[in-house]
Amino acid sequence: MRNIAMVVSYDGGAYQGFQSQPSGLTVQDELEKAIRRLSGQDVRLDGSGRTDAGVHAQGQVINFLSTSPIPVERWAIAMNGWLPHDIVVRSAHEMPEAFSSRKSAIRKTYRYSISTGKHPNVFNRRFRYHHYNPLDVEAMRVGIRHLLGEHDFSSFTSAGSTKKSHVRTVYEVRIERDGPDIHLFITGNGFLYNMVRIVVGTLLWVGEGKWKPDCIGPILAARDRSKAGPRAEAHGLVLWEVRYPEPFQMILDNDPASSLWP
Amino acid sequence: MRNIAMVVSYDGGAYQGFQSQPSGLTVQDELEKAIRRLSGQDVRLDGSGRTDAGVHAQGQVINFLSTSPIPVERWAIAMNGWLPHDIVVRSAHEMPEAFSSRKSAIRKTYRYSISTGKHPNVFNRRFRYHHYNPLDVEAMRVGIRHLLGEHDFSSFTSAGSTKKSHVRTVYEVRIERDGPDIHLFITGNGFLYNMVRIVVGTLLWVGEGKWKPDCIGPILAARDRSKAGPRAEAHGLVLWEVRYPEPFQMILDNDPASSLWP
Repeated sequence: MRNIAMVVSYDGGAYQGFQSQPSGLTVQDELEKAIRRLSGQDVRLDGSGRTDAGVHAQGQVINFLSTSPIPVERWAIAMNGWLPHDIVVRSAHEMPEAFSSRKSAIRKTYRYSISTGKHPNVFNRRFRYHHYNPLDVEAMRVGIRHLLGEHDFSSFTSAGSTKKSHVRTVYEVRIERDGPDIHLFITGNGFLYNMVRIVVGTLLWVGEGKWKPDCIGPILAARDRSKAGPRAEAHGLVLWEVRYPEPFQMILDNDPASSLWP
Repeated sequence: MRNIAMVVSYDGGAYQGFQSQPSGLTVQDELEKAIRRLSGQDVRLDGSGRTDAGVHAQGQVINFLSTSPIPVERWAIAMNGWLPHDIVVRSAHEMPEAFSSRKSAIRKTYRYSISTGKHPNVFNRRFRYHHYNPLDVEAMRVGIRHLLGEHDFSSFTSAGSTKKSHVRTVYEVRIERDGPDIHLFITGNGFLYNMVRIVVGTLLWVGEGKWKPDCIGPILAARDRSKAGPRAEAHGLVLWEVRYPEPFQMILDNDPASSLWP
């Protein structure tokens, strides 16, 4: 069996999330359908993690086992011929047997984008939460830094979380301005259910001046969801990048299909 | 009667063009419906020009006559409450009686965007024509300069054109690179039916090396549609900006609603 990994982008607006479920179309369903059409094989693929309904991905990583003889450099372009336009396979790779897109992941980065223009921009509104009033970005920058390091993030996960431990490590946080747009990047070793959206919802209250930037410390310490702000809307969120230890990352960074293009 | 003008953006992907027609939903239909809901009045609005099915606008300008007492600074935000998410009124203005969004227009700028990445980018694919192979942008820059000035553009309009004269003046042309994206801007006193798309289709052949950049001169001189290249796809095209003589432009540049936002 070959262990095939793919780096996948999607506009999650039309899907009930990444992972297959009894009702509603998911990104996983579309990917498995395209693999079946291409290889004739029914596979069950794994992703680095779920994304919720309406959440997007720039670099989701998936893998599955296949006996198909299709050369790995042909997979991406062939899959894109079968996939709907809002899902794009960016690259395909043959991985060592030990690789699991889910279990091997060591770092994930999410981006949350807010537009603060007077009106939504029709050309990126699908990927921006539109906030009518200006935000104090400096206050948000002070606030988000309290998340750095290892913490129990119970205050920042929805009641639905089934994880045994709520301890996670946040490695990097960054807020970039781009004209009327604000992009929050957060990198960690893993994220709880709805964690990024509750972090952003809380920071929005900081940016509005409703809460002080230093409120984040006591909210973390309380380990109580009711102390944090609201959950931000799904459509501003993008699973930006997933990183793996070597030798996996080296293989994922090298696109075998690049030889197919001039 | 008040003469109300609005600057409107839209993602044209879901519409059968700007202008109302017997079959299919149009941007004009949606705008007239929103005006009716807001003011209780049936109006027939005029736009600076039609855009074809699937073509977008950053700054389309419309106007209509109304007896509604709604203050002009409230129109934009109130319209946006009724409009679908892919149409956004950016500003509203009370204009002199003589203003016509169509007849008063003196300059229009269109943007056509091409993505040359190996795969389409899911986050902007609705507004980019995806071209798999690299393009010779320098050759395209040489080619497009042949369009500057006053010419008979019969070679660059579809058979459907009903205009008496095919003479138009192109004031400015510009090609910008932004990573894998190429944006062509073309400004003129008016454009014939499908003119920008046929210009772009021809320049794509120049960029591919199929035709020489200096082919544009003889194509113009031939006044024969069959001498030009194919018509580029609609979804890469955006009506970028429309300009008017003073005092109209000054009024349009001043957004009365800006006092409503902090």
